[in-house]
Amino acid sequence: MIRRSGFDVFLPTLLGNAPGDRKDVGLADAIDSAVAFINAAELRDIVLVGHSYGGMVITGVADQLAPRIRRLVYWNAFVPNDGECLNDMLPPEIVELFDSLVGDDGAMLMPFPVWREALMNDATLALAQEAYAKLNPHPYKTFTESIVLATNPADMTIAKSYINCTEDISIPQSLGWHPRLSEKLGLFRLVQTPGSHELCFTNPALLAQKIMEAGRD
Amino acid sequence: MIRRSGFDVFLPTLLGNAPGDRKDVGLADAIDSAVAFINAAELRDIVLVGHSYGGMVITGVADQLAPRIRRLVYWNAFVPNDGECLNDMLPPEIVELFDSLVGDDGAMLMPFPVWREALMNDATLALAQEAYAKLNPHPYKTFTESIVLATNPADMTIAKSYINCTEDISIPQSLGWHPRLSEKLGLFRLVQTPGSHELCFTNPALLAQKIMEAGRD
Amino acid sequence: MIRRSGFDVFLPTLLGNAPGDRKDVGLADAIDSAVAFINAAELRDIVLVGHSYGGMVITGVADQLAPRIRRLVYWNAFVPNDGECLNDMLPPEIVELFDSLVGDDGAMLMPFPVWREALMNDATLALAQEAYAKLNPHPYKTFTESIVLATNPADMTIAKSYINCTEDISIPQSLGWHPRLSEKLGLFRLVQTPGSHELCFTNPALLAQKIMEAGRD
Repeated sequence: MIRRSGFDVFLPTLLGNAPGDRKDVGLADAIDSAVAFINAAELRDIVLVGHSYGGMVITGVADQLAPRIRRLVYWNAFVPNDGECLNDMLPPEIVELFDSLVGDDGAMLMPFPVWREALMNDATLALAQEAYAKLNPHPYKTFTESIVLATNPADMTIAKSYINCTEDISIPQSLGWHPRLSEKLGLFRLVQTPGSHELCFTNPALLAQKIMEAGRD
Repeated sequence: MIRRSGFDVFLPTLLGNAPGDRKDVGLADAIDSAVAFINAAELRDIVLVGHSYGGMVITGVADQLAPRIRRLVYWNAFVPNDGECLNDMLPPEIVELFDSLVGDDGAMLMPFPVWREALMNDATLALAQEAYAKLNPHPYKTFTESIVLATNPADMTIAKSYINCTEDISIPQSLGWHPRLSEKLGLFRLVQTPGSHELCFTNPALLAQKIMEAGRD
Repeated sequence: MIRRSGFDVFLPTLLGNAPGDRKDVGLADAIDSAVAFINAAELRDIVLVGHSYGGMVITGVADQLAPRIRRLVYWNAFVPNDGECLNDMLPPEIVELFDSLVGDDGAMLMPFPVWREALMNDATLALAQEAYAKLNPHPYKTFTESIVLATNPADMTIAKSYINCTEDISIPQSLGWHPRLSEKLGLFRLVQTPGSHELCFTNPALLAQKIMEAGRD
């Protein structure tokens, strides 16, 4: 849908999540892989979209490639300041759960009941199962390694948007994504939509529309 | 609409709210009446829905009949832990209002202006009046009597959902239903919908759809 | 649309905002100009709508002309108690921004990037520009002068509604319009709608519908 609207869309897989990748990669490695992708493809005038963990990565990319980026779009995504890691923005009970799930290879996979109730609460059971089957274990060091930034998001002069799915309970809403994390962006544009953390599976057309509303000038 | 979708629907009236019932019944009496209904009808595989005060009752029922219940659905409903009463979850100004409204028979009826503005804010005046005429004075002891639970909701292994009407101001939203009370459920599924506390009157078809989304596996 | 529904609609321009007005007028002057308009037109049975700063003005008018007013409708509007000024309800960083923008004539105009991202976040760039071109510098003394009220809003017996646009980030939502300011009204009716602070430009038909829902008995 975004392509049909005339945009070029690129979907790089971050280091640590591609088939065959080692699972001991950290956040800096993942950021570097995105920077390398952008450099290799010689992309400019980029609307850079990050979802969830992806917010860590686009923040790191923006810190290195600011002049190439037209706007940052965080979609229920983490917004780190210099020295923070993803787990710093989670409540202790979720960190504890994640800690308990890490395998010997350093990778972590959400248990299905949590995925179904807290991340795909707007899906049928069949769709939640189908999406779960596509997941790959996540390199946990990307959640525990602190980001190194020259400039914090609020001080970046790049335009910024935050898309908030109003039924996203992947983080308890007493803590929440927005406004707790969105307001770390300084001046930003808010776009909201009904939907869970995984709107990409439950209503991709609606998400595409919201990404375009968030990404326009 | 739920029946047309193929489900059996049962609508028992709790003790204290049926025509002719004594108004000095308490919470344990009301819970017992629901348990008796389920036993008499030999129901199994139940999706048990509780609205508002009904959250007290379904929690007590689940504590006694866990193996019969497939999922608990709280719709802008109270979620008690062992030893709590409904009034413990209300702000003091509402408890004071309720206290002042109790009659000699132990029953309490909301004044119409509060009903119209704070409970049926999405209705026409005519619909608010029509619905108000159907109310019966409520046995107040069900609000002041503490629940006795062997297991708190967060520790129950039954699946749980919470439906939140986003315009429900029957409790001031600075305190609110969700996430304050919903998060007492532990792992739960959130379903939200536009609407007031009395969506059953203002948009029953939308409510039915949300109950089915909340109630599915 | 509201006129087509059979209502008389009046759109007085407050003193300080009409072409040629001095920019050193204060809040009491602006309130007096609205009171004078109502008196001159001999209006009765009024549903009085105030948006943003307009909430200061309708509160002041209601304090003087209570018997003429059927209902107050605050739309993402400030709700003052006696002795408060508008800036008292803003976070310090916004007051600082405003202070820095005041010209020699006492007027203040929002910079375009703030207008586009934080007030018209649901608009196209073209619409945000078009609307910005219609703005006139605002007499800042209306934001710094405290209101004088005989009766605070919660104690007024006039019916009250609050319309909240759920994507309004003109005040950071960690602080917010609703419920922080709406609950100063005491008993009130909540009406919510998707939209930014400037829904009047981005979806006037939807706003008109919500004003009628908020304004009905």
